[in-house]
Amino acid sequence: MRFHTRKWIKPQDLNPNGTLFGGRLLEWIDEEAALYAIIQLENPKTVTKFMSEIDFKSSAKPGDIVEIGLDVVAFGKASLTLSCEVRNKMTRESIITIDKIVMVGLDEQGTPKAHGKTEVEFVKNRLKT
Amino acid sequence: MRFHTRKWIKPQDLNPNGTLFGGRLLEWIDEEAALYAIIQLENPKTVTKFMSEIDFKSSAKPGDIVEIGLDVVAFGKASLTLSCEVRNKMTRESIITIDKIVMVGLDEQGTPKAHGKTEVEFVKNRLKT
Amino acid sequence: MRFHTRKWIKPQDLNPNGTLFGGRLLEWIDEEAALYAIIQLENPKTVTKFMSEIDFKSSAKPGDIVEIGLDVVAFGKASLTLSCEVRNKMTRESIITIDKIVMVGLDEQGTPKAHGKTEVEFVKNRLKT
Amino acid sequence: MRFHTRKWIKPQDLNPNGTLFGGRLLEWIDEEAALYAIIQLENPKTVTKFMSEIDFKSSAKPGDIVEIGLDVVAFGKASLTLSCEVRNKMTRESIITIDKIVMVGLDEQGTPKAHGKTEVEFVKNRLKT
Amino acid sequence: MRFHTRKWIKPQDLNPNGTLFGGRLLEWIDEEAALYAIIQLENPKTVTKFMSEIDFKSSAKPGDIVEIGLDVVAFGKASLTLSCEVRNKMTRESIITIDKIVMVGLDEQGTPKAHGKTEVEFVKNRLKT
Amino acid sequence: MRFHTRKWIKPQDLNPNGTLFGGRLLEWIDEEAALYAIIQLENPKTVTKFMSEIDFKSSAKPGDIVEIGLDVVAFGKASLTLSCEVRNKMTRESIITIDKIVMVGLDEQGTPKAHGKTEVEFVKNRLKT
Repeated sequence: MRFHTRKWIKPQDLNPNGTLFGGRLLEWIDEEAALYAIIQLENPKTVTKFMSEIDFKSSAKPGDIVEIGLDVVAFGKASLTLSCEVRNKMTRESIITIDKIVMVGLDEQGTPKAHGKTEVEFVKNRLKT
Repeated sequence: MRFHTRKWIKPQDLNPNGTLFGGRLLEWIDEEAALYAIIQLENPKTVTKFMSEIDFKSSAKPGDIVEIGLDVVAFGKASLTLSCEVRNKMTRESIITIDKIVMVGLDEQGTPKAHGKTEVEFVKNRLKT
Repeated sequence: MRFHTRKWIKPQDLNPNGTLFGGRLLEWIDEEAALYAIIQLENPKTVTKFMSEIDFKSSAKPGDIVEIGLDVVAFGKASLTLSCEVRNKMTRESIITIDKIVMVGLDEQGTPKAHGKTEVEFVKNRLKT
Repeated sequence: MRFHTRKWIKPQDLNPNGTLFGGRLLEWIDEEAALYAIIQLENPKTVTKFMSEIDFKSSAKPGDIVEIGLDVVAFGKASLTLSCEVRNKMTRESIITIDKIVMVGLDEQGTPKAHGKTEVEFVKNRLKT
Repeated sequence: MRFHTRKWIKPQDLNPNGTLFGGRLLEWIDEEAALYAIIQLENPKTVTKFMSEIDFKSSAKPGDIVEIGLDVVAFGKASLTLSCEVRNKMTRESIITIDKIVMVGLDEQGTPKAHGKTEVEFVKNRLKT
Repeated sequence: MRFHTRKWIKPQDLNPNGTLFGGRLLEWIDEEAALYAIIQLENPKTVTKFMSEIDFKSSAKPGDIVEIGLDVVAFGKASLTLSCEVRNKMTRESIITIDKIVMVGLDEQGTPKAHGKTEVEFVKNRLKT
């Protein structure tokens, strides 16, 4: 699993009990999954279609740094299935895991659009060719 | 299912494609589940522990009004399991459904705390007695 | 008065003294009045025209749950006059009251538009007929 | 009336109709009144107690620059009464007016606290003496 | 240097150490420079092109009131160069200084557009003539 | 230079001209520099002290994905100097560059604190030992 985006837990990310607000965490994950899928499918109109069970394993406190990891589970015809883990950057303790996030690329009419991709590509390779 | 909180979709709630950002929707659901559980369990230190599969059925556009519904599925010893649906207020079209959101009440040390509740209570009845 | 939308007071809603920021409360009320009027007038282009005196009766602290209530005072030709109360969900203590919020439905040119409504309607009844 | 703070209307400040969201405007006014009163009363624990009728005269669109003006109406024993106007910086068209905003300085226990002020003071004069 | 816009440091403006988040301060400065340049150049499509060295002299804490000052350094052909200081309103302690912020007015195609301005103008004088 | 954190440009990140708001970009850079320095210096109380000239090379539009890169320029006694580039993830076009961002680790009293670091460390290596 590759961990890219990092977040610094600030007061605006907390629930009233002073720990990381779960809703903020889900917002971060959804953004990361969307941009990851847009890069892979090369389709800006890619939407979240499904998330499997979400397990809130531990929390985080103000000042903690978390990193969001994604991995490709499968390429469908119009979809991309990802798995996700968010963990504490300093201790590597797992905060949340989601086995499957299904992202779907749409065409102009909002219908699923075949993407023809079957494996992870790196932008640097696309740019070189 | 009872629908209370309503949201008016504003520009700050959109993804770059101009429809409701999924991450914002998850943030709203998590807040609603948290406050509902806090009211029922009478414990301000109640956290999200688990969400079952999330099905993104349809989207919403700027200016749409959505309402968030919750229902009690089960009372555990320290937990409360809710189901959730968000729908378009004007058309009643379903936007998202989640069968199980498990909320857990904690004590001061952060350990699950038995709540002794077995059924939904209304604040007005608590205040009358 | 019917109370629908609920808010959980989080750190981002506080003033520097650690209590609910009055500006955030006014923002919530304005959104709730707007969406309520849009539903009743069936006109998405409905704007706030006037608010009568606002009495800040008490405050709220982080973790408090507040609910926003609205009632119809009168239907005008192009307008809808609402009254509003925000109260603490758990104690029912009143936080703010506003006797009159005048919302006006506009046409495409931005001119007040007669709505022909004279009483509160429920979306479920509209959908049934 | 002195106009200090200026705001640039950005997408996050709009309602779904693409004009300035009234709730955002009220949030800005409340912050400005609070900080103005804190400066005058030299008491950081100053809260909004009352606003008189609010007249929404015109709106603003993205890219507009608005400025917020405040004037002192009266000094009470523990309070300060302000009037407010927000206008378009470029055209000077009035957007909103509020005749009276009553701010009250509190002591540590949250009780109104006499401030002994009777006229507007400028920080530069305080610092010189 | 003229100080207009004022900000009240609220919890959402803090870093996890409880002092003013530097990123928020830079955001405020950029907005203020943009709107100041738009007013002077009378061109809404004015963008930030360059900032010289930024010196973070001191911080601010929740409840502090800061004011943002700008001065014109030079008028270029299509640009306007500003200097900036943010200081604590109550103590006048300097928080940040930037010697040069270069703003450029663009035409519809996004190319720098000559503005013909050579000195600071006041909106009130423009409106009178 | 290592690029970790990625951002998806959403409506709330735009200026009124519909391109990426420069202030938001500076906010993202400051957060990324802070968390990077905290990880390297192993000191949560690390603050931004200085930024060298900032060159806004190009802009970004809604839906663009940008990535934030940082590199270590030098380790000081209590400081860490970083360089930064933000670029478009898909095209690798450079959006902004900053040659030097000086971060300083502080002790409890807010005085610079020697960190004893002389080279970049990876968290995985720290955890293994």
